[in-house]
Amino acid sequence: MIEKKIFDFARETSTILIVNGSENAVDKNFFYLSGIENGVFEGSALIATPDTIKIITGQLEEEAARSSGHEVMIYKGKGEFESLLKENLKGVDSVGLNYSSVTLTIYTGLLRMIPEKSFIDVSASIAESRRFKTPEEVHRITEAGRIACEAIEHVYGSVKEGMTENELASMLVSEMMKGGASGPSFTTIVAFGENASMPHYTPGKRKLHKGDFILTDFGALYKRYCSDVTRTAVFGKASEKQRLMYETVLKAQTESMSAIKENMNGKDIDKIARDIIDSTEFKGKFIHSLGHGLGMDVHDHPALSSGADFTLKAGMVVTVEPGIYIPKVGGVRIEDDVLVTKDGFTLLTKAPRDLLEL
Amino acid sequence: MIEKKIFDFARETSTILIVNGSENAVDKNFFYLSGIENGVFEGSALIATPDTIKIITGQLEEEAARSSGHEVMIYKGKGEFESLLKENLKGVDSVGLNYSSVTLTIYTGLLRMIPEKSFIDVSASIAESRRFKTPEEVHRITEAGRIACEAIEHVYGSVKEGMTENELASMLVSEMMKGGASGPSFTTIVAFGENASMPHYTPGKRKLHKGDFILTDFGALYKRYCSDVTRTAVFGKASEKQRLMYETVLKAQTESMSAIKENMNGKDIDKIARDIIDSTEFKGKFIHSLGHGLGMDVHDHPALSSGADFTLKAGMVVTVEPGIYIPKVGGVRIEDDVLVTKDGFTLLTKAPRDLLEL
Repeated sequence: MIEKKIFDFARETSTILIVNGSENAVDKNFFYLSGIENGVFEGSALIATPDTIKIITGQLEEEAARSSGHEVMIYKGKGEFESLLKENLKGVDSVGLNYSSVTLTIYTGLLRMIPEKSFIDVSASIAESRRFKTPEEVHRITEAGRIACEAIEHVYGSVKEGMTENELASMLVSEMMKGGASGPSFTTIVAFGENASMPHYTPGKRKLHKGDFILTDFGALYKRYCSDVTRTAVFGKASEKQRLMYETVLKAQTESMSAIKENMNGKDIDKIARDIIDSTEFKGKFIHSLGHGLGMDVHDHPALSSGADFTLKAGMVVTVEPGIYIPKVGGVRIEDDVLVTKDGFTLLTKAPRDLLEL
Repeated sequence: MIEKKIFDFARETSTILIVNGSENAVDKNFFYLSGIENGVFEGSALIATPDTIKIITGQLEEEAARSSGHEVMIYKGKGEFESLLKENLKGVDSVGLNYSSVTLTIYTGLLRMIPEKSFIDVSASIAESRRFKTPEEVHRITEAGRIACEAIEHVYGSVKEGMTENELASMLVSEMMKGGASGPSFTTIVAFGENASMPHYTPGKRKLHKGDFILTDFGALYKRYCSDVTRTAVFGKASEKQRLMYETVLKAQTESMSAIKENMNGKDIDKIARDIIDSTEFKGKFIHSLGHGLGMDVHDHPALSSGADFTLKAGMVVTVEPGIYIPKVGGVRIEDDVLVTKDGFTLLTKAPRDLLEL
């Protein structure tokens, strides 16, 4: 049970209160702790102790809440919410809050409603717990990865001269949803030609021409968990330069990934990939970190970065995504998701990685 | 210029600081104030005065940031971020913060970096400004509405016996993206048959059968602005009960909408719809508010609700969405987006509203 696990990390308290605000301030840890797959749960709260999870929510979410099997209390209006909060925190002095999600508006509301409590920041403990995926979490991320990989293989068959980035992005999203995703896990990036030089590019009306790079960075959201995959292909025959860029990135990915196992430091994994790229004519063109943790968030936690001292542990899921970016020319990125194990890693995203000329 | 407008509302300060955290704590007001269409902008900041907008961001967002025409400063590492923040707030004593987005983690970071400043909550002023849409904002919402309406008309032509809710949802999202949306504005709801009784239902593998309701609640995201539309059809011939539910909801929508104009109170508009439904055998089955404000957020602000004393003003965009929900039987909701004007309203979502038997 997740409520047991979380207090192995959050030893500073025995009661955690999650409070959701409006749509921009819904805490994903509400779903991490409750396991609820459906619903929105704005303005809802969750109280966790090592033995129980209690949910306070409105009528619209009642059905989704009850499906969790946890105790559910329904409120109408702010007064009832306040009463339920007080009642269920009776006898609790110190309440753990997720400071990384609680806004100042929510916080001032809590100070008004339950002024006698002291609050403790449990955000680091929750984040630490979330780094170690449970089997159910690994299952969901694996499914999200499978859905994404099947989608890219499928849409590669429909790539046509003159199609726009937007069209290809819409096909990817549609295929992932047909495959069982509730939606994309982030805004799908499709970048043709020179646009592939921008890692955070937003797709537009640029049309596909012979010789273009086709960079696609996309992921599926499956039962609230993310995959995150990048593939780069060439439309038509790859030039020598394109092939060299691709082979360099692929080598950087393969060699850095093969070093992943428990107790390795993320910055050393990053260095393997960076050294390979920096030993070529593309020195300095790998302008971001090698990878990040993956889970309910696309960027779940730091992981493989020259700037982070981060020890990998079995049960973590991280991305491995080296790239080369040349402004006004284009870019190549190859990204996969792996589960760190005691002796190595398990690859969760299995779409082919050879250079495809479509 | 939006920086002039915002200080007409935020008279309590002459400097507003927007600080984005990680992906769950990116403040949409960063984009409201900057007008930037692309990019993610985690860990970025924006400083607004009545005359200028300055953006502090990382290298990955530089291109998107510069496209805004505002002053852009690029930082590498936390030290540079802190220096830029200090430098650009030199001489400013009182800094306006959006308390509804600033998390306790961000706030404690600010207290450390710029401890000598006093902070003022400008969230209400920003929210107030955002209620009054500029012509550019109305244009974007109108486009988002057009894209959504064209998508539903298109997918109605592909509805087939045995298809799943997920399949229909994926088609809707794909059509919206082909039409120019960057994605769905929220998780698309497709509910067949008895599932239509849950207003916040998440689509699944339920297959479509003759006689089912097909409830679709969906919207397009266009240049960061939302539409929000619901249509309910029947697959095959509607039963008498289905037709009665539909006609009741349509009447409630038509009559309440026709009362919308500047200076009307939202709770009176809600009452018109609720009274119509409560005068029938469906009394008590309209279990949510009639409508909400729409903009960068799907639920941009309260608007048409029995519990809110809210005066409509020209330039606001609100949804009108009565519904009837009968557990284990099904539900009907019809939802459109309107721009409030001095003398009435402009309908922004023009998909047909007659009962369709597909």
